[in-house]
Amino acid sequence: MGCEQKKTDDQQVEQKISKLISKMSIEEKVGQMAQFTIDVLGKGGGVYASDEPFELDPAMLDTVFGKYKVGSILNTSNNRARTTEVWENTIKIIQGKALQETGIPVIYGIDAIHGVTYTAGATFFPQQIGMAATFNPELMEEGSRIAAYETRASNIPWNFSPILDLGRDPRWPRQWETFGEDPYLAKVMGLASVRGYQGDNTNHVDPNHVAVSLKHYMGYGVPYSGKDRTPAVITESDLREKHFEPFRAAVEAGALSIMVNSGIVNNVNGHANYRLLTEWLKEDLNFDGVIVTDWADVQNLLSRDHIAKDYKDAIRIAINAGIDMVMEPYNLRFCDALVQLVKEGEVSQKRIDDAVRRVLRLKFRLGLFDRPSWSRSEYPDLGSPQHEAIAKAAADESITLLKNEDNILPLKKGARFLVTGPNANSMRTLNGGWSYSWQGEKVEEFAQQYNTIFEALQKKFGETNVKYEPGVTYKMDGQYFEENPPEIHKAIAAATGVDYIVLCLGENSYCETPGNLDELSLSENQIQLALALQKTGKPVILVLNEGRPRIIREIEPGSKAIVQLYLPGNYGADALADILTGDVNPSGKLPYTYPKFEQGLITYDHKPCQNIGQKMEGVYDYGAETAVQYPFGFGLSYTTFEYTNLTIDKKSFVPGDTISVTVDVKNTGEMAGKESVMLFTNDLVASITPDVRRLRAFRKINLQPGEKKTVTLKVAANDLAFVDADGKWVLEAGNFKFQVGNLADKVTCTQTKIWDTPNR
Amino acid sequence: MGCEQKKTDDQQVEQKISKLISKMSIEEKVGQMAQFTIDVLGKGGGVYASDEPFELDPAMLDTVFGKYKVGSILNTSNNRARTTEVWENTIKIIQGKALQETGIPVIYGIDAIHGVTYTAGATFFPQQIGMAATFNPELMEEGSRIAAYETRASNIPWNFSPILDLGRDPRWPRQWETFGEDPYLAKVMGLASVRGYQGDNTNHVDPNHVAVSLKHYMGYGVPYSGKDRTPAVITESDLREKHFEPFRAAVEAGALSIMVNSGIVNNVNGHANYRLLTEWLKEDLNFDGVIVTDWADVQNLLSRDHIAKDYKDAIRIAINAGIDMVMEPYNLRFCDALVQLVKEGEVSQKRIDDAVRRVLRLKFRLGLFDRPSWSRSEYPDLGSPQHEAIAKAAADESITLLKNEDNILPLKKGARFLVTGPNANSMRTLNGGWSYSWQGEKVEEFAQQYNTIFEALQKKFGETNVKYEPGVTYKMDGQYFEENPPEIHKAIAAATGVDYIVLCLGENSYCETPGNLDELSLSENQIQLALALQKTGKPVILVLNEGRPRIIREIEPGSKAIVQLYLPGNYGADALADILTGDVNPSGKLPYTYPKFEQGLITYDHKPCQNIGQKMEGVYDYGAETAVQYPFGFGLSYTTFEYTNLTIDKKSFVPGDTISVTVDVKNTGEMAGKESVMLFTNDLVASITPDVRRLRAFRKINLQPGEKKTVTLKVAANDLAFVDADGKWVLEAGNFKFQVGNLADKVTCTQTKIWDTPNR
Repeated sequence: MGCEQKKTDDQQVEQKISKLISKMSIEEKVGQMAQFTIDVLGKGGGVYASDEPFELDPAMLDTVFGKYKVGSILNTSNNRARTTEVWENTIKIIQGKALQETGIPVIYGIDAIHGVTYTAGATFFPQQIGMAATFNPELMEEGSRIAAYETRASNIPWNFSPILDLGRDPRWPRQWETFGEDPYLAKVMGLASVRGYQGDNTNHVDPNHVAVSLKHYMGYGVPYSGKDRTPAVITESDLREKHFEPFRAAVEAGALSIMVNSGIVNNVNGHANYRLLTEWLKEDLNFDGVIVTDWADVQNLLSRDHIAKDYKDAIRIAINAGIDMVMEPYNLRFCDALVQLVKEGEVSQKRIDDAVRRVLRLKFRLGLFDRPSWSRSEYPDLGSPQHEAIAKAAADESITLLKNEDNILPLKKGARFLVTGPNANSMRTLNGGWSYSWQGEKVEEFAQQYNTIFEALQKKFGETNVKYEPGVTYKMDGQYFEENPPEIHKAIAAATGVDYIVLCLGENSYCETPGNLDELSLSENQIQLALALQKTGKPVILVLNEGRPRIIREIEPGSKAIVQLYLPGNYGADALADILTGDVNPSGKLPYTYPKFEQGLITYDHKPCQNIGQKMEGVYDYGAETAVQYPFGFGLSYTTFEYTNLTIDKKSFVPGDTISVTVDVKNTGEMAGKESVMLFTNDLVASITPDVRRLRAFRKINLQPGEKKTVTLKVAANDLAFVDADGKWVLEAGNFKFQVGNLADKVTCTQTKIWDTPNR
Repeated sequence: MGCEQKKTDDQQVEQKISKLISKMSIEEKVGQMAQFTIDVLGKGGGVYASDEPFELDPAMLDTVFGKYKVGSILNTSNNRARTTEVWENTIKIIQGKALQETGIPVIYGIDAIHGVTYTAGATFFPQQIGMAATFNPELMEEGSRIAAYETRASNIPWNFSPILDLGRDPRWPRQWETFGEDPYLAKVMGLASVRGYQGDNTNHVDPNHVAVSLKHYMGYGVPYSGKDRTPAVITESDLREKHFEPFRAAVEAGALSIMVNSGIVNNVNGHANYRLLTEWLKEDLNFDGVIVTDWADVQNLLSRDHIAKDYKDAIRIAINAGIDMVMEPYNLRFCDALVQLVKEGEVSQKRIDDAVRRVLRLKFRLGLFDRPSWSRSEYPDLGSPQHEAIAKAAADESITLLKNEDNILPLKKGARFLVTGPNANSMRTLNGGWSYSWQGEKVEEFAQQYNTIFEALQKKFGETNVKYEPGVTYKMDGQYFEENPPEIHKAIAAATGVDYIVLCLGENSYCETPGNLDELSLSENQIQLALALQKTGKPVILVLNEGRPRIIREIEPGSKAIVQLYLPGNYGADALADILTGDVNPSGKLPYTYPKFEQGLITYDHKPCQNIGQKMEGVYDYGAETAVQYPFGFGLSYTTFEYTNLTIDKKSFVPGDTISVTVDVKNTGEMAGKESVMLFTNDLVASITPDVRRLRAFRKINLQPGEKKTVTLKVAANDLAFVDADGKWVLEAGNFKFQVGNLADKVTCTQTKIWDTPNR
């Protein structure tokens, strides 16, 4: 594949940067490497909180920009979404002060995760896990394009998105922030997102686009206890082949910045990992963008991980590992300490100049020297019907039909319902975390104009046909997993006289470490509610609205239909209503393996020994078995598709070839439908035990009833290479099985190639 | 520490071996590298089973020894314990035939796991997890000495024991075969076991001792899904510091053979791991013993793991990785295939000669050339009262008191009981797997003379005072986790009129992969039985008889006392009865962390970030939390101990020093008792995030009421070194906390040392 990182082609800019750097004091340089949270600048309450209404504190502006020459600010004040008016007014003052004190504009960064999290009126899409379920990179690109525009409408040019961590552990509370368990799907969707955010010219990002920050580099998503920000252990093969691959591809496609994993991988803290930060990124990939820390993670080297003697030592470790900007976020002592380290020779001038050059380059690329702020009136389409239509389309395509016994769905319009469960009447649960606040607890305040499931079903099926009685409710001021005393009897009573029960279970909103769990099962209250409702004999349509796949083994058999919403955003309920009536034919596919039991968690690309293949001979005839609830890529439709005529353009190949696979797909049912056609391969014998299957290509098509299309899927032979136990890429001669739908054929690689470079 | 492997000092033997090898054909050499299971030699039924009564088949003796010159046989016939008479008769014939055909005695190997598994009448000790709970290496050594003697009584000189895998994952079905989660405890107990088995002269093992096979080298115990023989991923640090350490110590102490991990560690199959087998063992440690495969694991490279093209290729991979003997166990084609590989130059003569030399060396060391078999009459003490007394003492010291609300225990002798639960009247569950058969299903047939819990309590408290009604029973002909329809109402009814309920829960017997689990909780039937019995208001004494810590969170609060038996062997019930009356004061300590929830499994030596320490400042004030049911090292006594006067002999130290810690321990209660005094250290700051605690020394003492002893615990400074992310041993200057009981002090290392050698 070679290294295609788009180095800056703007020598004028590089010269300007050199000139600027040559005039900067060490204090000014260090200021460019510092990022503080906006509450540090707010009036009242110290650095952790600000008065309402929010106002900038002139004294703190003096300190932060006058004294410390700080180059970056992030976050929203008081953990709350703001209007574009507040954003514009606030950032204009900040830029004015920064320019006055340093001559350099501030770069403002924000977490705009599924739309612009902290902007009132912004368009909210399904969370990334739902976007992955669409298997539709065009929709992803369009969503990111809209989010970029709406971020710019908020006077912000830098977005800490997308997440390219793999969601390979269903326990991890950030699984819903990922594109799921598969590295290829994550790569394709990640590239689409980066294109949508940054536009085509990453050296000169236009005013409708923003810089991305890929995160969290890397291996964050597989802590071995499943808990956020706890250690991960990853083989060299998995690290390079799976976890690195989406980052590599996005960096080579021009991603302008990258945020570091807060956790510990193979005993090394992400923020102390010279190998991954400096060698893999800056050296191997020639990455010329900015490496920024995650929240307070330099401090964490000291207080959480005990690898630094004191705060200054923590800074030394992080900067020398390759960090360019520190998201401090509160402690101005950072600047003094880093200046001190440079004066003592513990951090080199060269390292500082490299970091500052990267920060200034990003500011030039974003045009901030020309236009540090702008008018919100230039962005009239914030939350426009056109934007929101894309959010609705994404919700439509993400929702995944997991069960449809006796084709109970779609339902006729006159049906009478009980809508029940803790997720039945909540905008908060539809959106999840990173929605108007960090943990999502302020959603109801900002999203009143959108429909909950109860509201959407009333609108769709008629107000009098739809009753609501939750049975179980979340404790809205508690931790995400807390529930009020259940009132299951009320739900049972309300089921009298209805035709169907729409049971909405799942999770309340959460984000990051506060979303840790101790058991993967749905809560006991919810399980009991489901079992009780199933006993009424009314058909139960189970709607799952959850950030990660909570175990449903006990209630699956008694559910007539099961619909997975993930966290579908503000249009999730409307999309569900359209799917229940058949106005939309579901086409989402699971981007992860849905587990059946607490233990034996597995991904689809596991090793042969992880699930029983050939049993041993003789008396000790054993093999490991692992049952899953639903496999990766699973999802039903209201129509049926027939795969025929699988053709591979060659019987054998050599490294460097492209293998072209065609298959005919026909809609053999009665309704138009979309189908994600997926190509899986497996290496039959390899020098390290091969994964049982790997997704290599996919394409989503739309077919009218009776329509047939020929789909072509291409695979670069080099993509079939794997990373051996020593960390080298190798493509071995031997046989591969290629599989599309229920069809399969064999192809032979006739030549072995070993790469001497870190990347293919 | 340096390398202290006891190289052979017997040059005469080495010369004999050279002479033998020089005369051997390639077929004869390959035969010495082959090991088959005895059913291959049995009459009737093909290789997988034999007729009963068992008889050797002369035709197969011709084939195996005449044609293939096979050097080793293992296992029992038809998966069933045999009398010493059968063993003697069988092995005499085998040796006679082997010597006639090859001039070289066979080495017979067996799994004698907690006593001689496959010998009727042998002494059965607690399984290793219980031996670890004694924290008494003297008892361990004595137990292994007895097992060695009784193995010799069975005409067998080679035992595939002890297990030095770490039991760091409570889901792993072999956790009970280990010494628990801590590498230091495993090392100390492992060394004691090796001494007990092999005696003092490992170059000339006397007729009362046997050769060990340490197993399973290495990293087998931490598969990331928890399922047996599935992949593990281990950091270089954990691999060398924790998993390797017990093996290293035992090899340096003269362990004569080692068995290989069936699983895959860091993507490399144990049986293909040149680095671990040849480099770490044979080169770094100068190990001159035999490396033997586990059951069928060469075949597994092909059929399970897909890293070999065909069976011959699998043999090539394994032998070239460093395997000396292949436990095939059925397929005689092995010999032809390996001969072929040598002829084709795919396996070198040198490698073959090295393997054969090791096999012959082991046979010489065991005296087999002088005396290939012997009379059972030389071993009159098989199952003697003296031997069985040690088994009882070990059970006494292993049983661990986890809860004793209001000091409800010990009980007065006249008390009336209901004894209930599926483990209440079973010798099978007391023994677990590796007891008279592989899965333990034949225990009742062989262990009639011993007491179940019900029987022991009847004997102790009077027959009429003790009722039995199980409530829940295991399906004895099913899988280990299958239960019959529960009869909880019967148990409730039987509780009428008793003073106490002794509720015996846990697991049925299992072994290896068939013991895999999907959820760690005790079975739903057992939970319901416990909750129902607790509702009766009678005090419930919960007795756990389980191979691994099954989750008891729901039933712990309603239990007045909780006693962990582990798998205590044939005297477990008698030991329990003595503890319930107070004739024995419990002194076992948990050799693992008892989990509270399915997820967030943790060991005591976790990283600081895995459990909440200092929370983050500001609005994002989060940290991971992990609750456990009981910590590592936990265990109550009927008396109390007071720790005072912690003294460390130096305030600072340098590499190479020995640090001596003394503490006064006083029995402040009313009853004599034993206490395991443990020294934990933690490194306050290190270049990779340090473990929160590490066990560095322990000593078990016996104290009369009011008695005080001064305990001295010594730590080599070099043992405080850790393995850094690059795999190098390093002892860093800085502060360490030393903790004994509730007392702690700080010691400073004043000099950093980095080792350039693979081992300290």
